[in-house]
Amino acid sequence: MKKLADINKDFAQWYQDVIYEAELVDSSPVKGAMIIRPYGYSIWENMQKVVDQKIKATGTKNAYFPLLIPESFLKKEAEHVEGFSPELAVVTHAGGKKLEEPLVVRPTSETIIYAMFAKWIKSWRDLPLKINQWANVVRWELRPRAFLRTTEFLWQEGHTAHATKQEATDMALEARQLYKDFMQNYLAIPVIAAEKSASERFAGADHTYSLEALMLDGKALQMGTTHVLSHSFPKSFDIKFQDKDGKMKVPYCSSWGVSTRMIGGLIMSHGDQDGLIIPPKIAPIQVVIIPIYRKDDEKELVLNKVEELKKQLEKLDIKVFVDDDDQTTPGAKFYNWEIKGVPLRVELGPRDLKNNQIVVVDRLEKNKQMISFENIATEIPKILDDLQDKLFKRAEKRLMDSWYQGDKLKDFGSTLEKEAGLYQTGWCGSKECELKFKDYKATIRCVLDENKHSQCAVCDKKSEKDILVAKAY
Amino acid sequence: MKKLADINKDFAQWYQDVIYEAELVDSSPVKGAMIIRPYGYSIWENMQKVVDQKIKATGTKNAYFPLLIPESFLKKEAEHVEGFSPELAVVTHAGGKKLEEPLVVRPTSETIIYAMFAKWIKSWRDLPLKINQWANVVRWELRPRAFLRTTEFLWQEGHTAHATKQEATDMALEARQLYKDFMQNYLAIPVIAAEKSASERFAGADHTYSLEALMLDGKALQMGTTHVLSHSFPKSFDIKFQDKDGKMKVPYCSSWGVSTRMIGGLIMSHGDQDGLIIPPKIAPIQVVIIPIYRKDDEKELVLNKVEELKKQLEKLDIKVFVDDDDQTTPGAKFYNWEIKGVPLRVELGPRDLKNNQIVVVDRLEKNKQMISFENIATEIPKILDDLQDKLFKRAEKRLMDSWYQGDKLKDFGSTLEKEAGLYQTGWCGSKECELKFKDYKATIRCVLDENKHSQCAVCDKKSEKDILVAKAY
Repeated sequence: MKKLADINKDFAQWYQDVIYEAELVDSSPVKGAMIIRPYGYSIWENMQKVVDQKIKATGTKNAYFPLLIPESFLKKEAEHVEGFSPELAVVTHAGGKKLEEPLVVRPTSETIIYAMFAKWIKSWRDLPLKINQWANVVRWELRPRAFLRTTEFLWQEGHTAHATKQEATDMALEARQLYKDFMQNYLAIPVIAAEKSASERFAGADHTYSLEALMLDGKALQMGTTHVLSHSFPKSFDIKFQDKDGKMKVPYCSSWGVSTRMIGGLIMSHGDQDGLIIPPKIAPIQVVIIPIYRKDDEKELVLNKVEELKKQLEKLDIKVFVDDDDQTTPGAKFYNWEIKGVPLRVELGPRDLKNNQIVVVDRLEKNKQMISFENIATEIPKILDDLQDKLFKRAEKRLMDSWYQGDKLKDFGSTLEKEAGLYQTGWCGSKECELKFKDYKATIRCVLDENKHSQCAVCDKKSEKDILVAKAY
Repeated sequence: MKKLADINKDFAQWYQDVIYEAELVDSSPVKGAMIIRPYGYSIWENMQKVVDQKIKATGTKNAYFPLLIPESFLKKEAEHVEGFSPELAVVTHAGGKKLEEPLVVRPTSETIIYAMFAKWIKSWRDLPLKINQWANVVRWELRPRAFLRTTEFLWQEGHTAHATKQEATDMALEARQLYKDFMQNYLAIPVIAAEKSASERFAGADHTYSLEALMLDGKALQMGTTHVLSHSFPKSFDIKFQDKDGKMKVPYCSSWGVSTRMIGGLIMSHGDQDGLIIPPKIAPIQVVIIPIYRKDDEKELVLNKVEELKKQLEKLDIKVFVDDDDQTTPGAKFYNWEIKGVPLRVELGPRDLKNNQIVVVDRLEKNKQMISFENIATEIPKILDDLQDKLFKRAEKRLMDSWYQGDKLKDFGSTLEKEAGLYQTGWCGSKECELKFKDYKATIRCVLDENKHSQCAVCDKKSEKDILVAKAY
């Protein structure tokens, strides 16, 4: 096993080290793509299960649309094609022949889905139409980084059509709230839900809302986005419906997505020097049991009890793994499961058997507790719940502690560049002033619904709304 | 609504009609690709759920590998590239530039997965290694047909490595048995599990096992395959392990998959003139409730009871949909849900309320039964179970009735060509004789473990094993 880089001195290297050592991913012979290994993939499966349920609860239905989209579809919406062109992978040959029209590997599916919406939507009675797709998408990346920016990634993309702009906006906000609930209550990551500035919008959107989180190194990560699409988008696909008043109208659309990027956010929100810390509600393994014995007669007794304990915990719907590998020492096992971020470790040896107890060590504070056999069913779920709660509170405190108020960019800019963190300040709304934040390697993460700062941090003109500025992934 | 083509006179058109009318799919502006609509996709989700559990129970773990594979990877195994070359879609440009090496959109993932196996497998202790992937794959199709043959389809692909050929074979057979259980017990489709002839093998396999089913029109459908890969395949990717005896050896590999093609098999196994018939265990909606009323005071009473009934059935884990659309007549609803193949229809009107009963109509025999309120919890699950059973038995009887013994191809060939069905006969094992079946538009579906026929149906030479010959999709 490789020693992880110092989390405080070289966070970027720590991230690389931990994702490989914990066997979440492996580098791929395909440039820019990653291999998601079973342990990493099972985190994604757990995320999918919850998000899918929440999406279905909004009345949205899953469907599947083609991977390969005719190039002409992307060109129908000017802003959209401009935004995505540099990132496209293009199929020019298939079936042994040059194609008449190149096909792009979907970078997102608005265009192909809108082509179908045009067919499915005839009347106000067909609205709202709410479709979701779980899929892989490809966006060519020059500087790939596992989970955060990869040429191919996995995601869900919700696409909806509504009779009015208000309804489309409500849907984009409902989706954002759904994501926020998931991120806070399952991933234990506090997120800021706000709107993006115009320049950071999705290519083809009137409004982009985002969930921003603060990573352990003080940089922000966009964890998910929801969009109200520009009306020109459905127009360019000729989507029309006859409204109650008999008139033909163009519906308004929303789209929204979260991806495997959330796994990157999870790692960078909760890890420590010893590796990952996975919140219990999303952990592939919630409790790892490590049997401890020396002699053969001990072994049988211990393993019998371990098996009994495993069954008992599984009955409580707890995900348990017994690491009974004979070739590895308990110490090496502790080390391995700490890197992998398993919330609770249970040790059970001959002495514990005698004392009718197990030893429980939590991954966050590494507190060692003895729990007697008869209290297991009540205590273990409680410890897991507490741990979930503590992880959220720790991350929330960090977010609050790193949330600064700044008046003038020239005063706080260099500190922001050096030490990161979130800076709330004023902004006149101009593109020129927005660009100035780049001088300090920062960007506007979102526009807040607050107005504590009366002047723009750059030009001193009147500020309409506060913004949050940060360095970001 | 369009009237479905006659199932007995034009089965191909009936298939096309029913998949569109039941809203399983829609045709796509992308040639050869299909849109899987929500109702169709939810059948796939139900299939995935069961198959995924069964795969995990074999100790196989899900992971994810890149969609785009360097062309050179496919070329490493001669047979493999020869088999797949004509079907490849090729990305030649990405990120605005011509790529140095073209990337193929995966037609299957052996090559990229073996490149990783070479990295992950070092010692006998790393074996067996069992990986599964749920993914989309692309194989260019000149004559696409929804679910059966499409340019892109969804599937799972299991890939395993083992110390010995016997273990790899056992795995391929275990996967086949898993598929068979699923197809028979969930899809209610009886399948023949046997081995493919050499010419029908997967490109790069030593053995290909398949599950063959008989469709309503007497043609066979290959529902899934499992393979023992040729040893040259892992060799060409330089996968090696140190065995217990200290020697470096090359492991043996299996791969196996089922796809959205199973949905096609489901439709063509159980439909009738009125549309789909979906077996209860895989149905997105198991019971549709249709409230019947004329006056407003009736409406409230009926809808209250319907809501109560819905909750009662949901408590029994039954998937219920209430069709309370005010704009559609009950008759039109019956028609619509019959096309969609919902196993049970429940009608509830004022007269039923008075009589403390519901009217239940099953999709297969259209028997109308009155069930009193107090018997619902016991009767409905029983009717669903019976229906599942009846569908399997009906399909099994059809399979047996269409399974003929044939001695000489010249005697049974023209009947086979005209009327389809399965013909069990003898085969000398030669490629030349195998080609003769094509004269009657038939192929060897599989080689059976029986020896009822002593002579080859074509050349009269000695037959080693019986074969099943049929026209196939």
